[in-house]
Amino acid sequence: MSENIEREPATPTGGLSRRGLIGLLGAGAAGLAIGATGGALTATAVSKQQADATVHPFYGAHQAGITTPVQDHMQFASFDLADDATAEDLQSLLQDWSYAASRMTQGLDVSASGAVGGSPLAPPDDTGEALGLPASALTLTFGVGPAVFDSRFGLASKKPALLEDLPAFVGDALDPLSSGGDLCIQACADDPQVAFHAVRNLTRIAFGRARLRWSQLGFGRTSKTTSAQATPRNLFGFKDGTANILADDTSALKKHVWAASAESPAWLAGGSYLVARRIRQTIETWDRVRLEEQERSVGRDKAHGAPLSGGDEFAEPDFEATGASESTAIDANSHVRLAHPDMNNGIRILRRGYNFVDGNDQLGSLNAGLFFLSYQRSPEQFIAIQKKLSTDVMGEYLSHVGSGVWAVPPGASSGSYIGAGLFS
Amino acid sequence: MSENIEREPATPTGGLSRRGLIGLLGAGAAGLAIGATGGALTATAVSKQQADATVHPFYGAHQAGITTPVQDHMQFASFDLADDATAEDLQSLLQDWSYAASRMTQGLDVSASGAVGGSPLAPPDDTGEALGLPASALTLTFGVGPAVFDSRFGLASKKPALLEDLPAFVGDALDPLSSGGDLCIQACADDPQVAFHAVRNLTRIAFGRARLRWSQLGFGRTSKTTSAQATPRNLFGFKDGTANILADDTSALKKHVWAASAESPAWLAGGSYLVARRIRQTIETWDRVRLEEQERSVGRDKAHGAPLSGGDEFAEPDFEATGASESTAIDANSHVRLAHPDMNNGIRILRRGYNFVDGNDQLGSLNAGLFFLSYQRSPEQFIAIQKKLSTDVMGEYLSHVGSGVWAVPPGASSGSYIGAGLFS
Repeated sequence: MSENIEREPATPTGGLSRRGLIGLLGAGAAGLAIGATGGALTATAVSKQQADATVHPFYGAHQAGITTPVQDHMQFASFDLADDATAEDLQSLLQDWSYAASRMTQGLDVSASGAVGGSPLAPPDDTGEALGLPASALTLTFGVGPAVFDSRFGLASKKPALLEDLPAFVGDALDPLSSGGDLCIQACADDPQVAFHAVRNLTRIAFGRARLRWSQLGFGRTSKTTSAQATPRNLFGFKDGTANILADDTSALKKHVWAASAESPAWLAGGSYLVARRIRQTIETWDRVRLEEQERSVGRDKAHGAPLSGGDEFAEPDFEATGASESTAIDANSHVRLAHPDMNNGIRILRRGYNFVDGNDQLGSLNAGLFFLSYQRSPEQFIAIQKKLSTDVMGEYLSHVGSGVWAVPPGASSGSYIGAGLFS
Repeated sequence: MSENIEREPATPTGGLSRRGLIGLLGAGAAGLAIGATGGALTATAVSKQQADATVHPFYGAHQAGITTPVQDHMQFASFDLADDATAEDLQSLLQDWSYAASRMTQGLDVSASGAVGGSPLAPPDDTGEALGLPASALTLTFGVGPAVFDSRFGLASKKPALLEDLPAFVGDALDPLSSGGDLCIQACADDPQVAFHAVRNLTRIAFGRARLRWSQLGFGRTSKTTSAQATPRNLFGFKDGTANILADDTSALKKHVWAASAESPAWLAGGSYLVARRIRQTIETWDRVRLEEQERSVGRDKAHGAPLSGGDEFAEPDFEATGASESTAIDANSHVRLAHPDMNNGIRILRRGYNFVDGNDQLGSLNAGLFFLSYQRSPEQFIAIQKKLSTDVMGEYLSHVGSGVWAVPPGASSGSYIGAGLFS
């Protein structure tokens, strides 16, 4: 890094950089907007319906969107930095994104001049489709991929040793066009229009510095992070996320989710690692499988999500209990057993996945499945479990078509920005 | 039609046909399920969280989902009848769909044996992902396309003269794989998982009789059908649907929406015609257009949706009022003017469109836009307005990539089924 970068004050709350404004407005209009002192219409003229709206703080020790009560909708996006992007570009982009995120998560427009702009002769800063909508519990969570630490930005010395592209797994059928990426944004909200609006405007801000690589809309959260949330169901019709790590389980979060300096660089302490997997489910085949076999694959009953060894949804599975025949009640290759901490040296991960439906193919088969997201203290946790799942009976009905891993910096304090630790 | 069809009682409330059960379970399992007297788990064992859930009646003079207060989410699906499908297949499919829709719209499983089935040795009737979810205001609206009246089913004499494939329009870039179809289902709900669940299970029921041709998930309703609903915004950031026909405007519905025997066959009276258009918006270009030009294209201001001739959102546009220069305040080629009843011999349509986002292309451009849906007494209403829009300034930022038109039968009375009039 240059001295210049280190001397730059980290003050995203001061507004967007000139590069960010050019992204929003175009090079010609940016000067116009900067020069404008405000037209007849301003963003403040547009009332926001904020009553009853959940607002999550943007600044804090950890980024929001990890332990936050899982919202109903998600827009995920992966970005590639421009071929000619510099370390300064990366830094200013993270500053601009933090500034914009600190506003949008509070239900505000992307910048102070808003959706109706500073001048009728310039494009408005904000695209406007969330005007009048409340914050809708929006969280924006940013990640940095392995390639950011190559020779391009002088950040090799900051690279987390654990941050490597994931190895190949059984069931992989990865499409490079829905895998990887230098940076990622997870937008979660209770209104998909609010989540989409955030990603769209952050994409605009990145213009010239980073470009949208792939993106995914999701609904029907397939996990929960508070005991008050009902366990949702995935597209196989089963409850998903019963045994997830909950937001109030501080010791489990410390042990399994938050990156720590024992094995991660200091700048990442209090952050995490995010794994995304786009998992297509072969819906039509699954739907022809008899109930008994569906339940054997999962290891839980379909109605209540209880382990097949007995009890209710939250009963601990008993992998030794015998079933009707001589075998165990819970199949040795069932999903619940292979993914269970007891089979994985106590390893746990925090899941935040969503269902997705992207139309159908020419044969009438649904292009649908699970957009799996997990946060963990080390990618090794995901890798170990996913390797264990190589004999998962349920895997017969899954294809992993997208994949990515990112380091998720800790939260920013007010006046700073996400990823500031990379540049100090 | 054969005598046999006419003699068959129309009693979809009695349960699914054997063909429908084969669709759900497969040919081998269907006999098993029919023979089963119920396993340890039954659908009734699964509690439904119906408190506070809006439930719309399925039976009635008109199909639900037309004037129903527009829900927040939509799953649309178009189907092709099988090459060897008979008139009996079409009739039994409409009966089975009606039976299943009469259940799912009330928050019930697709059939009485539900998501955990009648036997563990058979696939469950219901796929289960909506277990525990309330009805969520689900409506299911069925349509019949022009090709159903060709020589295949002996229905030529029933064909509505108005039901023809739409003509080509300026801005068309139609993909046949997201256009047309013999039958369509519009599922609207306040929860996308509930809407998807309905279409998925109706698709399964159709197995062997009809196959999914294309489908579309939508969110962020871009219209309203009651004055209590706030006007939503489309992905151009503008309010959309301000001047829609409202559910309590009985005379406008009669004049513009409900098919009548003056020009439609008797079996369609009280029904309507549905036009669907998948309209991709060139988001990135629009976002670089200055506010003044965006507003000129639409003919309304961005903040409040008021016509540029003055007043509030609901003020009548004054197309003669002069603007700052010598031209009119509302541009002659603005969207609001060209689509206005005053420019179209008083023609109005009832819109029920949704925003859609289907990821992005390899250049990073969003594959997003408006899934336009409109109901009208005659497709000629849509055709006239769409022709008028050929000089629409906003059209520069739109590509129509999908299209379809269907006759929407009137509602069914309890004990009958949607489309019964086709077979009597």
